[in-house]
Amino acid sequence: MNQNPYTPFSRSLREECGIFGIYNHPDAASITYLGLYALQHRGEESAGIAVSDGKRVIGHKGMGLAPEVFDPDILQKLSGHLAVGHIRYSTTGSSELKNAQPFLVEYSQGPVAIAHNGNLVNTRELRSSLEQRGSIFQSTMDSEVIVHLLACSQKQAIEDRLIEALGQVTGAYSLIFLLKDKLIGVRDPRGFRPLCLGALNGSYVLASETCALDIIQAHYIRDIEPGEIIIIDEAGIRSLHPFPKQKHAFCIFEFIYFSRPDSMIFSKGVYAARKELGRQLAYESPADADIVIPMPDSGNCAGLGFSEASGMPFEMGIIRNHYVGRTFIQPVQSFRDLRVKIKLNPVREVIEGKRIVLVEDSIVRGTTSRIRIKNFKEAGAREIHMRVSCPPHRYPCLYGIDFPTREELVASSHTEEEIRQFLGLETLRYLSIEGMLKAMPLPGEEFCLACFTGNYPT
Amino acid sequence: MNQNPYTPFSRSLREECGIFGIYNHPDAASITYLGLYALQHRGEESAGIAVSDGKRVIGHKGMGLAPEVFDPDILQKLSGHLAVGHIRYSTTGSSELKNAQPFLVEYSQGPVAIAHNGNLVNTRELRSSLEQRGSIFQSTMDSEVIVHLLACSQKQAIEDRLIEALGQVTGAYSLIFLLKDKLIGVRDPRGFRPLCLGALNGSYVLASETCALDIIQAHYIRDIEPGEIIIIDEAGIRSLHPFPKQKHAFCIFEFIYFSRPDSMIFSKGVYAARKELGRQLAYESPADADIVIPMPDSGNCAGLGFSEASGMPFEMGIIRNHYVGRTFIQPVQSFRDLRVKIKLNPVREVIEGKRIVLVEDSIVRGTTSRIRIKNFKEAGAREIHMRVSCPPHRYPCLYGIDFPTREELVASSHTEEEIRQFLGLETLRYLSIEGMLKAMPLPGEEFCLACFTGNYPT
Amino acid sequence: MNQNPYTPFSRSLREECGIFGIYNHPDAASITYLGLYALQHRGEESAGIAVSDGKRVIGHKGMGLAPEVFDPDILQKLSGHLAVGHIRYSTTGSSELKNAQPFLVEYSQGPVAIAHNGNLVNTRELRSSLEQRGSIFQSTMDSEVIVHLLACSQKQAIEDRLIEALGQVTGAYSLIFLLKDKLIGVRDPRGFRPLCLGALNGSYVLASETCALDIIQAHYIRDIEPGEIIIIDEAGIRSLHPFPKQKHAFCIFEFIYFSRPDSMIFSKGVYAARKELGRQLAYESPADADIVIPMPDSGNCAGLGFSEASGMPFEMGIIRNHYVGRTFIQPVQSFRDLRVKIKLNPVREVIEGKRIVLVEDSIVRGTTSRIRIKNFKEAGAREIHMRVSCPPHRYPCLYGIDFPTREELVASSHTEEEIRQFLGLETLRYLSIEGMLKAMPLPGEEFCLACFTGNYPT
Amino acid sequence: MNQNPYTPFSRSLREECGIFGIYNHPDAASITYLGLYALQHRGEESAGIAVSDGKRVIGHKGMGLAPEVFDPDILQKLSGHLAVGHIRYSTTGSSELKNAQPFLVEYSQGPVAIAHNGNLVNTRELRSSLEQRGSIFQSTMDSEVIVHLLACSQKQAIEDRLIEALGQVTGAYSLIFLLKDKLIGVRDPRGFRPLCLGALNGSYVLASETCALDIIQAHYIRDIEPGEIIIIDEAGIRSLHPFPKQKHAFCIFEFIYFSRPDSMIFSKGVYAARKELGRQLAYESPADADIVIPMPDSGNCAGLGFSEASGMPFEMGIIRNHYVGRTFIQPVQSFRDLRVKIKLNPVREVIEGKRIVLVEDSIVRGTTSRIRIKNFKEAGAREIHMRVSCPPHRYPCLYGIDFPTREELVASSHTEEEIRQFLGLETLRYLSIEGMLKAMPLPGEEFCLACFTGNYPT
Repeated sequence: MNQNPYTPFSRSLREECGIFGIYNHPDAASITYLGLYALQHRGEESAGIAVSDGKRVIGHKGMGLAPEVFDPDILQKLSGHLAVGHIRYSTTGSSELKNAQPFLVEYSQGPVAIAHNGNLVNTRELRSSLEQRGSIFQSTMDSEVIVHLLACSQKQAIEDRLIEALGQVTGAYSLIFLLKDKLIGVRDPRGFRPLCLGALNGSYVLASETCALDIIQAHYIRDIEPGEIIIIDEAGIRSLHPFPKQKHAFCIFEFIYFSRPDSMIFSKGVYAARKELGRQLAYESPADADIVIPMPDSGNCAGLGFSEASGMPFEMGIIRNHYVGRTFIQPVQSFRDLRVKIKLNPVREVIEGKRIVLVEDSIVRGTTSRIRIKNFKEAGAREIHMRVSCPPHRYPCLYGIDFPTREELVASSHTEEEIRQFLGLETLRYLSIEGMLKAMPLPGEEFCLACFTGNYPT
Repeated sequence: MNQNPYTPFSRSLREECGIFGIYNHPDAASITYLGLYALQHRGEESAGIAVSDGKRVIGHKGMGLAPEVFDPDILQKLSGHLAVGHIRYSTTGSSELKNAQPFLVEYSQGPVAIAHNGNLVNTRELRSSLEQRGSIFQSTMDSEVIVHLLACSQKQAIEDRLIEALGQVTGAYSLIFLLKDKLIGVRDPRGFRPLCLGALNGSYVLASETCALDIIQAHYIRDIEPGEIIIIDEAGIRSLHPFPKQKHAFCIFEFIYFSRPDSMIFSKGVYAARKELGRQLAYESPADADIVIPMPDSGNCAGLGFSEASGMPFEMGIIRNHYVGRTFIQPVQSFRDLRVKIKLNPVREVIEGKRIVLVEDSIVRGTTSRIRIKNFKEAGAREIHMRVSCPPHRYPCLYGIDFPTREELVASSHTEEEIRQFLGLETLRYLSIEGMLKAMPLPGEEFCLACFTGNYPT
Repeated sequence: MNQNPYTPFSRSLREECGIFGIYNHPDAASITYLGLYALQHRGEESAGIAVSDGKRVIGHKGMGLAPEVFDPDILQKLSGHLAVGHIRYSTTGSSELKNAQPFLVEYSQGPVAIAHNGNLVNTRELRSSLEQRGSIFQSTMDSEVIVHLLACSQKQAIEDRLIEALGQVTGAYSLIFLLKDKLIGVRDPRGFRPLCLGALNGSYVLASETCALDIIQAHYIRDIEPGEIIIIDEAGIRSLHPFPKQKHAFCIFEFIYFSRPDSMIFSKGVYAARKELGRQLAYESPADADIVIPMPDSGNCAGLGFSEASGMPFEMGIIRNHYVGRTFIQPVQSFRDLRVKIKLNPVREVIEGKRIVLVEDSIVRGTTSRIRIKNFKEAGAREIHMRVSCPPHRYPCLYGIDFPTREELVASSHTEEEIRQFLGLETLRYLSIEGMLKAMPLPGEEFCLACFTGNYPT
Repeated sequence: MNQNPYTPFSRSLREECGIFGIYNHPDAASITYLGLYALQHRGEESAGIAVSDGKRVIGHKGMGLAPEVFDPDILQKLSGHLAVGHIRYSTTGSSELKNAQPFLVEYSQGPVAIAHNGNLVNTRELRSSLEQRGSIFQSTMDSEVIVHLLACSQKQAIEDRLIEALGQVTGAYSLIFLLKDKLIGVRDPRGFRPLCLGALNGSYVLASETCALDIIQAHYIRDIEPGEIIIIDEAGIRSLHPFPKQKHAFCIFEFIYFSRPDSMIFSKGVYAARKELGRQLAYESPADADIVIPMPDSGNCAGLGFSEASGMPFEMGIIRNHYVGRTFIQPVQSFRDLRVKIKLNPVREVIEGKRIVLVEDSIVRGTTSRIRIKNFKEAGAREIHMRVSCPPHRYPCLYGIDFPTREELVASSHTEEEIRQFLGLETLRYLSIEGMLKAMPLPGEEFCLACFTGNYPT
């Protein structure tokens, strides 16, 4: 159903989901569309919006980027003053329209739409026992389980139903629920995924990142706290903390890679955190070289930080083609590695004869990096010293990030030296776990480090 | 989501649904596509196919005609040797993709897809009590209730679950269920809607009308009987008759209007039945005229019957534009009634100066007929004597036909003489109920006549 | 560029072109669209419209049916009160957008658009000498030559330029020219192709067939005469006859096959002519059979004529699927001949056990007919006696009809008996040339019979 | 015909055209597609490719970006080993498909396709005299005149015809001609627009910028010289210099703005030239501020240069949304200036409380800059000092750049101080003409400075 004619250049670490909701705005659907647009980097697979006009909840969703799924006619039909939106890169459930969110159903109390960022870890057992009771499932999403638990609750008040339902699930969830006359935001007790609250004149806004507040010129109020349920309705905002406290487990990768540099997450700025990662990298692993070049755009901030800490000149020696993502690639037999070449082109006059520090934010499979490094060498680079602004990834994420399997993670089975040789580098250094934590704007114990250490919080 | 660029010229009586299933064919999805194509006249709103390869059930559905929803790539992805298909004109549930069928879900016993032709009359209560138990609904289709009842049954065997579920619903249903390794056909005890069984080499086929057997060169075996459940699987065909006998209530409108003239329904031929309606009309209501002209194509058979019984020459004096349905209509201010004009053009040299018997199969709102008659007069017709091959419609259908409301049914509030004057005719005669039943190939008591008499079988 | 999703079921004799023009109407483009829509049967490959608002001539054309090429937005942009339209089945020039018409260019006197129905026979020499002078060609259409001749003329008045240009070309041409402030209609001196004049309130209309006048409720005035040039502008209508008289050569196939039965062409009705062909066929070649069935829809009129003349009952024993043309055909290995089956389905109950006269309007390659006859036999026909309402085609057409090559014309290399055997018929009879001419509403010497006799008028 | 669903965010100075050709490559069309893809920034309105297989020249073109116009099926149909491609932002001729290039026609010597970058200044007279001779024009492109002149030449050899034709035209032209068996590159004697020659194994390549060589991994040989005609065919490469020498007039704006920073043009690197512009700016117009922020991506290089020369830290304080260009903007009443906001978002934590030097490459109308500056102030910037890396634009370009009219050019009617106030800046400084020329890698007299000085070279 997605007519998207191009093969997207998926980043190695595929992103997860972005969620957005607004209460009390006459253009709720259009605002939500803009919010999703700002969060698009969090998921390119599907997009959806559900709205309520106080009586009726309707929705539209489709495969593709938000602008491919929505057009002005569709947005106009989505009339209402409450809305919830979702963009998605599948982490559980296969890549089909039925797995797109928001997931909108009718239950005994009326319509409910749910938008979920994160991944549950105990859905198999829950689903099985729900099916024994007679529940039928339309999707393979873990999020559908939450709605069934909500529907099966025999409590009356929605908050009691929610508490009963969420009390049974384990894992990562930042959630926005849309009811006929309420918007509800939830963050799991460990706080894996971000969720913030903003205001725009008389409207309240919930969003994964603050960049979605910026685009609609809303102002940031605060983050939803781990384990908090926030209910926004006619009566205003109510905050509940019904769950037992848990040790926090904020996803450190949101700082390193996922979030936009112009966002705040977990109440802290991303840009500064990334620059600090670059600085730590320069302190830990200096290089005897001429210039610092970041891998655009994900290595930009760390590259600047490295340059500042080392005093080595910063050059934007790799040019990104702005039309990438809008093209298809015609396989031409004679060209290997065309995908890489099309996206980024080194500036020969900058690179030629130089010893280069190349700053990257991560290496996952290593195959793409290898081709790029080959290209830079062909463009005349004398030496390439790669500096990676996080430690090596060795373990899969259970909480909503679609890492490759362990077999595919180059760092899970190879030493740094083996990777260096594979990539064709003069030197290769990863940031240490200590250095990474030192660069973070929050204490180290607040974070989930499972993908680096294998210590899973659940 | 429907990219259909034209405004369809919907027939006044909107059609309902067509269903098709095949067991044991390597090209099950393609065969089903062809079956739906042959049944397309039964519903132009949405189309869908679900297939099983014995392990996995997958599906695809969309808004629009079957050829708009499916293309060779999609059919190829639907690999499997069992399939069920559905085309639909909404009678219950609004016109949205989520209401398209087959309805495909997972329940405790695995996946099930359902295709439904007909309309249930007691879903409101059933749905409410299911929701109290915690069931959640994704659509507004009455058919979804059947699946929930199936899922909630505590019986083990699928036939016992089915009997328990269907024992609770009342109304019209011809159903095809697709399970991983079974195809199941059901017809309600009153037998409102048709469903037939055919064979194609080693495959079994279920279809609403025999024209869907013809297109794939399958041969007709027999009709599914009212109240019969037919289970097709590895063990062959089993037939169950678990429900108490009910007085039959075959939809007489299938003979008069809905089915294709090259089909057999309720085990009898449609073409001959329609010709016989025309003959009865000539006996009951002869006209002093020069030629008989049918309204193409729906009045063709009755027109031939009228001509034969009256001895008056038959002329195809109205030419149908074969591109209609493929166009949009540009509103040109200076033209009223363009829609009618575009579709049918009278042949001036045939009509000029003639007294014409115009044979129609029904008059619903009367507005379109009025414009046509005006056109024929302008093309030179001296007199127009309309003969309608069924009695006047006065009551809505509860069993799956989307008649206009009573207010819109011209015959529910006007006398024959008032309608004649409204349409601008010299004479107007409807066929009597007795004449209609006399023309039928089955005894009168087999039929539901509710739309003519208001006596509803349920 | 053509997004047409289906494989059209092209008729064996591919049609040619249809042209339409209107002078002095505020919705000139929309009117022209409707005119093309009525003429769509004359060409399904491309469609185009050019309009003038008195100052500027603009146009739009594309591959596909008129409704596929135009939408309300495009029509609205084509503002002006003069318009010319064209639909096309390529006879010369390949099947590309650049060969679509109207052909719109600028020359020394301003813009001119041309729409051409027919085929010239001396373009090769003309083109070569134009190129020597420095003319450049954008298309492979013979019509482009006419525009170059017009541009190269050193005369001043447009009529003198036209006379000089057309004086150099030989062959078949019905033409409409659009200039900034004039509409000009031309028919070649032999009058191969039809062109008629109509009026709609204060507007003048030119069209290939009268069915295009009917759709816009214009009234028919007269045919453009062979060799006539008609100039419509502010000063009213002027008629010129500048060319030496030639023996007329009206295309007899327009009556037999091409034109719509509700049209008048060459000032005579098509429906009556076709019925008369059927009557002649019954007189010449009666059959000992039970019923007459026409091949729908092209054999309908002749079938009625045959039935009336023979007294044998007329049955519509073959049902045409109205969705054909809107589908694609999924190749299913197990089905041969699916294309034929999908389009037409015999009514078993009518055919079974019967001796049938099957009335066709032509046999070209014979391959499709053969499959149909096989289908009818499989549906139970006892005997099939085919009657063809024209003589066998043995020669290609040079004047705008896209017959197959001689090798492909079954009648050019086989006897009637060989064809009968190939088709699997009990008997086969073609109408004689004498019978055909007897049925025509004009004297025999008015017609071009080249495709039957090989005597080419040029 | 362009189905592009979004409103592109056109840069204020609309770009012009990009051309590409290849001789002797089995995948000529696909290679050309990649070349156009790399040159896409030079024109987003239409794209086209023509190919020759040595016998036949065919082409395809359409409105939109190259990936919207071409897909693998179309490229596959364009088989041949010679190709020429073109992408375009209309400078002359209106925005219609007929004005897309390559312009492909037949003349007496066979087919020829032409791709043109630049703008002629004497076409009106040439066109008028050609029309008097009988030439007809299909487009409003100045490039069509060149083909007519070629066709009208009475010389035999293609080079003589070309010399005769080009001898008559004045203005800016970099041209690639495709004949059945030849590829010809031309640059006008003043050399306004770039054109370079590369090689890829046994193939020769012509392209507007070297980034199009990089993408296909061809290597750069040299620039085509001003006034040079290069003929590539079976015999190899021949170079002609038939025209009298003229003072060079290279477009300085190619260095400042148009070309990609990873390209070489006029045989010099763009990245270094832009950095040098930034350095000159820092020398000429230092600022008392805290950080340097470039307007991404066009101000990046100059921003780096400014930072290096001034010693002030460089921050990427404005984040570009990578999905822009792929979205539509839903007008939401409550938001002014949404277009600007959607594209670029300032990083609040970087900007807050800071005195900022904002480096831009040009100000044309000023309206967009004004909104951006307002956004930065709202994000907390204490002071904004804008530095523009070229002098103010005061005059229109006659040679192929689509500047706004004089009325729209803010610098043509306002003083620097007025612009500063309008934009809401603390200080505003443009680079001087002297500073600009000093930064260039070629002597000042080689350039056309007409848009700054009003001294037009022709």
